[in-house]
Amino acid sequence: MTDQLIDQSVVDAENARREIDLRRDYDSLGERLDRRGISIDTIKDKVAAFHVAVPSWGVGTGGTRFARFPGKGEPRDIFDKLEDCAVINQLTRATPNVSLHIPWDKADPNRLKQSAARFGLGFDAMNSNTFSDAKGQPLSYKFGSLSHTDAATRQQAIDHNLECIEIGKVLGSKALTVWIGDGSNFPGQADFTRQFERYLEAMKVIYADLPEDWRLFTEHKMYEPAFYSTVVQDWGTNYIIATELGDKAFCLVDLGHHAPNVNIEMIVARLIQFGKLGGFHFNDSKYGDDDLDAGSIDPYRLFLVFNELVSAEERRAKGFNPAHMLDQSHNVTDPIESLILSAAEVQRNYANALLVDRKALAGFQDANDALAATQTLKTAFRTDVEPILAMARLEKNGAVDPIATYRAAGYRARVAEIRPEVAPGSSGIV
Amino acid sequence: MTDQLIDQSVVDAENARREIDLRRDYDSLGERLDRRGISIDTIKDKVAAFHVAVPSWGVGTGGTRFARFPGKGEPRDIFDKLEDCAVINQLTRATPNVSLHIPWDKADPNRLKQSAARFGLGFDAMNSNTFSDAKGQPLSYKFGSLSHTDAATRQQAIDHNLECIEIGKVLGSKALTVWIGDGSNFPGQADFTRQFERYLEAMKVIYADLPEDWRLFTEHKMYEPAFYSTVVQDWGTNYIIATELGDKAFCLVDLGHHAPNVNIEMIVARLIQFGKLGGFHFNDSKYGDDDLDAGSIDPYRLFLVFNELVSAEERRAKGFNPAHMLDQSHNVTDPIESLILSAAEVQRNYANALLVDRKALAGFQDANDALAATQTLKTAFRTDVEPILAMARLEKNGAVDPIATYRAAGYRARVAEIRPEVAPGSSGIV
Amino acid sequence: MTDQLIDQSVVDAENARREIDLRRDYDSLGERLDRRGISIDTIKDKVAAFHVAVPSWGVGTGGTRFARFPGKGEPRDIFDKLEDCAVINQLTRATPNVSLHIPWDKADPNRLKQSAARFGLGFDAMNSNTFSDAKGQPLSYKFGSLSHTDAATRQQAIDHNLECIEIGKVLGSKALTVWIGDGSNFPGQADFTRQFERYLEAMKVIYADLPEDWRLFTEHKMYEPAFYSTVVQDWGTNYIIATELGDKAFCLVDLGHHAPNVNIEMIVARLIQFGKLGGFHFNDSKYGDDDLDAGSIDPYRLFLVFNELVSAEERRAKGFNPAHMLDQSHNVTDPIESLILSAAEVQRNYANALLVDRKALAGFQDANDALAATQTLKTAFRTDVEPILAMARLEKNGAVDPIATYRAAGYRARVAEIRPEVAPGSSGIV
Amino acid sequence: MTDQLIDQSVVDAENARREIDLRRDYDSLGERLDRRGISIDTIKDKVAAFHVAVPSWGVGTGGTRFARFPGKGEPRDIFDKLEDCAVINQLTRATPNVSLHIPWDKADPNRLKQSAARFGLGFDAMNSNTFSDAKGQPLSYKFGSLSHTDAATRQQAIDHNLECIEIGKVLGSKALTVWIGDGSNFPGQADFTRQFERYLEAMKVIYADLPEDWRLFTEHKMYEPAFYSTVVQDWGTNYIIATELGDKAFCLVDLGHHAPNVNIEMIVARLIQFGKLGGFHFNDSKYGDDDLDAGSIDPYRLFLVFNELVSAEERRAKGFNPAHMLDQSHNVTDPIESLILSAAEVQRNYANALLVDRKALAGFQDANDALAATQTLKTAFRTDVEPILAMARLEKNGAVDPIATYRAAGYRARVAEIRPEVAPGSSGIV
Repeated sequence: MTDQLIDQSVVDAENARREIDLRRDYDSLGERLDRRGISIDTIKDKVAAFHVAVPSWGVGTGGTRFARFPGKGEPRDIFDKLEDCAVINQLTRATPNVSLHIPWDKADPNRLKQSAARFGLGFDAMNSNTFSDAKGQPLSYKFGSLSHTDAATRQQAIDHNLECIEIGKVLGSKALTVWIGDGSNFPGQADFTRQFERYLEAMKVIYADLPEDWRLFTEHKMYEPAFYSTVVQDWGTNYIIATELGDKAFCLVDLGHHAPNVNIEMIVARLIQFGKLGGFHFNDSKYGDDDLDAGSIDPYRLFLVFNELVSAEERRAKGFNPAHMLDQSHNVTDPIESLILSAAEVQRNYANALLVDRKALAGFQDANDALAATQTLKTAFRTDVEPILAMARLEKNGAVDPIATYRAAGYRARVAEIRPEVAPGSSGIV
Repeated sequence: MTDQLIDQSVVDAENARREIDLRRDYDSLGERLDRRGISIDTIKDKVAAFHVAVPSWGVGTGGTRFARFPGKGEPRDIFDKLEDCAVINQLTRATPNVSLHIPWDKADPNRLKQSAARFGLGFDAMNSNTFSDAKGQPLSYKFGSLSHTDAATRQQAIDHNLECIEIGKVLGSKALTVWIGDGSNFPGQADFTRQFERYLEAMKVIYADLPEDWRLFTEHKMYEPAFYSTVVQDWGTNYIIATELGDKAFCLVDLGHHAPNVNIEMIVARLIQFGKLGGFHFNDSKYGDDDLDAGSIDPYRLFLVFNELVSAEERRAKGFNPAHMLDQSHNVTDPIESLILSAAEVQRNYANALLVDRKALAGFQDANDALAATQTLKTAFRTDVEPILAMARLEKNGAVDPIATYRAAGYRARVAEIRPEVAPGSSGIV
Repeated sequence: MTDQLIDQSVVDAENARREIDLRRDYDSLGERLDRRGISIDTIKDKVAAFHVAVPSWGVGTGGTRFARFPGKGEPRDIFDKLEDCAVINQLTRATPNVSLHIPWDKADPNRLKQSAARFGLGFDAMNSNTFSDAKGQPLSYKFGSLSHTDAATRQQAIDHNLECIEIGKVLGSKALTVWIGDGSNFPGQADFTRQFERYLEAMKVIYADLPEDWRLFTEHKMYEPAFYSTVVQDWGTNYIIATELGDKAFCLVDLGHHAPNVNIEMIVARLIQFGKLGGFHFNDSKYGDDDLDAGSIDPYRLFLVFNELVSAEERRAKGFNPAHMLDQSHNVTDPIESLILSAAEVQRNYANALLVDRKALAGFQDANDALAATQTLKTAFRTDVEPILAMARLEKNGAVDPIATYRAAGYRARVAEIRPEVAPGSSGIV
Repeated sequence: MTDQLIDQSVVDAENARREIDLRRDYDSLGERLDRRGISIDTIKDKVAAFHVAVPSWGVGTGGTRFARFPGKGEPRDIFDKLEDCAVINQLTRATPNVSLHIPWDKADPNRLKQSAARFGLGFDAMNSNTFSDAKGQPLSYKFGSLSHTDAATRQQAIDHNLECIEIGKVLGSKALTVWIGDGSNFPGQADFTRQFERYLEAMKVIYADLPEDWRLFTEHKMYEPAFYSTVVQDWGTNYIIATELGDKAFCLVDLGHHAPNVNIEMIVARLIQFGKLGGFHFNDSKYGDDDLDAGSIDPYRLFLVFNELVSAEERRAKGFNPAHMLDQSHNVTDPIESLILSAAEVQRNYANALLVDRKALAGFQDANDALAATQTLKTAFRTDVEPILAMARLEKNGAVDPIATYRAAGYRARVAEIRPEVAPGSSGIV
């Protein structure tokens, strides 16, 4: 039995108020799905087994280069963060794993492991950080890290990644995610070719150190913090990296890291087809890497991504085993609330994608009946699967309505008493 | 005689090494322009009279939400910043005015005025800041400022703007620039209509307080720091604001604040045509509000903007009197160097635009000879006017090659000895 | 009683097969809405009263500059088109009005009126065409129309618009929609200012001729067919036009005519706020003016537009009375099917927007509870209102499932026998 | 001695009027370049040896889906087109090769060869067309070609490509360019994975038929004519294709085929680095695949592409041998004039890129002196190389000022008398 930071009696009381309506809605939806030849319980069981990792840094209030406006009860360190993550998992039963960021979360690995275990949490992919300078770090990443012109700086960045692997080994992690901000702000500042050669050379050293049962995820991003060119700028470059490194190297897709108008679900399909999809950083965006809550801006796009994932799952695509993680910046909401809802949103789209009548779809595709094909997706997307998600939570002692329950439990007020207030930050621009 | 932070003998020595070649190039260019019916001296005199203001915050190293990597000799306060601005003006003779940002530059106005006067500097538009929380400020701008749902917060933002006007009066400024980050991160978070009503109401209070000989500049921006909607999101909304407020209200155009692919020079033309162009924040961008150095990414776009400005100047468009200011974030260069080159770049495009054969152009336009029309612009753009800029500087005791001269003078090393090192910042994201 | 091109017995038989399930789903949804304090019948009645006009040109297969691949049974003329439109309205009961395009639909107005009346159809806004050359037209629009440098060409374009008004008067239309392709393909080709002056001057002539009870809609578009600049390029310019012309002039919003990433629902809100929203051309797009079926790419965006419309309707915003029209290019589907579904999609989003709990939303907005506010919208969006739409159709003798019914009725095959096959077109590129 | 369609005496007379000024400008530029350690004659010789192919379809007036406004003297067939191409080459001496499009240019290959030879023209890459239906073709490409769901349609598309190779063999072509419009307009219409499998399978058949000394170029494009997804949507997919096919398969880059804001020069660098850059379709764009004249919108971007090409040339990058072709749509200009200027523009940027001080640049890059690095590029870009281009033309009996000479020669008026007027086309939209 693990420790629970929200009193289960609060959860039970909140659930009790909603259970009758939930069961009615679940049965009604079940009946409608039955007419479409779908067993609601089967969907519910799959949803219940679907997990998405929470990033440790996600539980702190995010900001922009203009400002950061911290909320009440900001976590002071990784141990506070683990507690916040535990709350999210207790209510959603969807987020049993936490993804750490080094050096932000640096601490005694054994103590980390114990703290997580106390709440029944485990660890997802390790994230290295060579896009900002850590206190006491000898060489600066101002002009790059793994692709820096200076060999010693590259070695420092390599060593940092190796250290992340070492920590991860203790924690039981099985993957390293490498995202670098390396690039340039001016045409000519960097030689694209030599810069990429240096990057590949450095990554090969890291790859060589990867334990046999680990995976290496590289993440592409079009721009920011570099504003003219970025070394790993798109999936094309990312695919080359994964191919050059070897069988344990895969591409990680952050939904907010693409050019305007790009068809992301198609990139996902291509990476699956060629065995190089490593996983996701889920979030949503309207303009750039806005890091908004998953599904908050263009929910159909998220569904179309899951449509590819479920299709690959059902046809047992070779090597298909993507990691799922949220990666968002919660600037104006309580981060715990945003993560609760975003985890549910990811599950929701998984559920909706499971409802696609794939046999009918394939038939319409073969017949070039574009209208019937697209309506097949829409029918699945439009089905309100909330009763399925809620029932999955209820059966695992999570909350039928996790936000209402979280608010009722007064967790934020409680930690705000213990955790000191944080001064607002004005950041990058001055 | 004003104080000079770069020893004039260094400037003179550097100029001496370049003067012969410069005069030869100036004469050669003069001969070629003469064939096109253009007097090089007339162009040079216009360029010499063309100024662009430097933003006080621009002399500090900029950053992103991911990190800020300070350089050596970062200015400690507004007085250090004024010294850096003085260096820029000494070498370029193009930037006699500084634009302040309150509260960042808050200090005794009379002392500010004296310090600036010492270097022959004056003050351009005042900039208010209600997009980040200042120390000790009672109410937070987390959810907006001039458009906030809370009347007291709006009043605080109004009062801050009124204070900026008061400071500006002492300093001899003649304009207030208002840029707010207000908006929303989620559909539904804000009611677009009520939010804009509140904004207009607040702006009317500020406008009412504007001295008779001042102008009010409002600045639009598509996104960031708000990532779903922004109150003053584009020139359409900005135009409505300027119209609603009155004759002293104008639109300010920051070149990096538009949607992808937008034709900015056309927006400039429209604002001129309807008497509402207030001025510019010059910079360049490839993706979003990248705040890169003016002309560094798409120099032809900057030229096309100046083509509209010179056209308006030459036809004496009614009410045409734009303010020019640089607004950039110098993340990987010495900010003084970037500002020197950017001031030159703005002058350069002004010079190139002056070379357009407008009579021929109008003829081609009337005849729908698209090819000849566009070549008329290209001919002007392709002319390398560097000798004109250099001669204008030389004649005013500035530097023929300001960057080489700046480096030769060792200013940065000198201030680095006095000004303490600044720790790198990790910013918005955690 | 009007003529029916689909045998009502086919409709009735198809409906009979679906009625029991529909009533069960309608009741179940009614019960769930009741818990949220919403009367399903009230919603249904509003939906039933909501109409969207069909464009005459929409019933022909569309194409691109690369090719057009006609389908079977392409309408030969406006009379065939009216028949196709009648089928759409018979099955959906949502599209009683047709919008004509002159000169494409030029015919004896009285005969047009009779033909439409036979099927119970009326006429929506008249659309003029000065973006392509009509056979026998003396002057070409190659270099523009209402903004052309040549006065005679402008006059020809003016006259054409006046003729459209005359035809419309006979038909009972009450609005003229003006979209022009005028712009330029090269920097310098056109003088932005003089071009816009000419446009405004020409539009004033047209406006002066507008009957007292008519409205004039001008439509903005970022690009295409002009690829460097467009005269009416965005809502800012469009707003100026409507303001300059007068009280009967309004802005028309085509959802596919904006820059990437632009927040369209906010533009809609601004135009409503300042009394200048004329109406819509509904469609969807992923890249540019793709003219895809409404709601097919980003359904949430369409919902957010309707969220603004319903909000304005419920608060009785001054002068709010938008026209609704579909404007799509059906390149790979049967155009009748696409228009049937798109009409339903527009109704669907209207229905979903009616479900928004506006009182709760306003409260969350005032409290800056971004998460609860956005979830209020999502709850409404996620509700599957298909039973409401279907019931509204059933009660008006339309089809519960209009696509299945249309296919069952064999209309396309029937007209394909009468209407000759059309050769595929290769178009703009050669 | 080849036939000349412009009387050489006209060329000579025009040149004579300009020669004195040209020599003076060439010498003056030579002196300035000499100071930078550059021999102007060496640059001129390289420029003179630089060629770019002209597309046969480029000499006809282009259009959009809204309209096509033909000019006077439109070429009636491929033999007229070859004459227009000959004029371009006679005046520019930069375009000795023509790229054909089958079936548009289908004719007896031997007659084609003779006609071209008469003017000293040769043939560049063959272009197949499976994006529109040809008269008499049994199966339609409405729903795709090489990736069609129907095997017979795929085979028809394969056969067409094989036929292009056969024709090319006779003509002396050494490459086949394959661009397909295959994709989808609706989510779900196509299965991304199966569609791409079919495409690869079909391409392998074509590849197998490629003569030993030929190259296969595949061209990616983000969208249009498909508006939701495109099979070969970006360089990532294109790179996979080239890798899957084999050593003779390369990626072709059309500058207008990318997402907004994408860094194209970086894609070029990556393809060079991994040995897969096949060549270019040069043009410029502001919004999408606008097919505007090369360098007309963002000339610096074109320079940055050439900066990569010259860098690869100078470091003798392995397998580097790109094909150069113009691919533009001339909607409002005389196509011959646009192609003349565009060929010059391509040469111009090659010349400018040759002026980059690469040793200094590498030094600044290694030292992370971003400002000096980017200024190194700017210095090269700003140099007006027109005298070099003109001298290269003069020395080869081309025209110093090709546009003025073309106009003086009256070619267009002459062919307009022979070639009948073409009716304006309204195209895709109805």
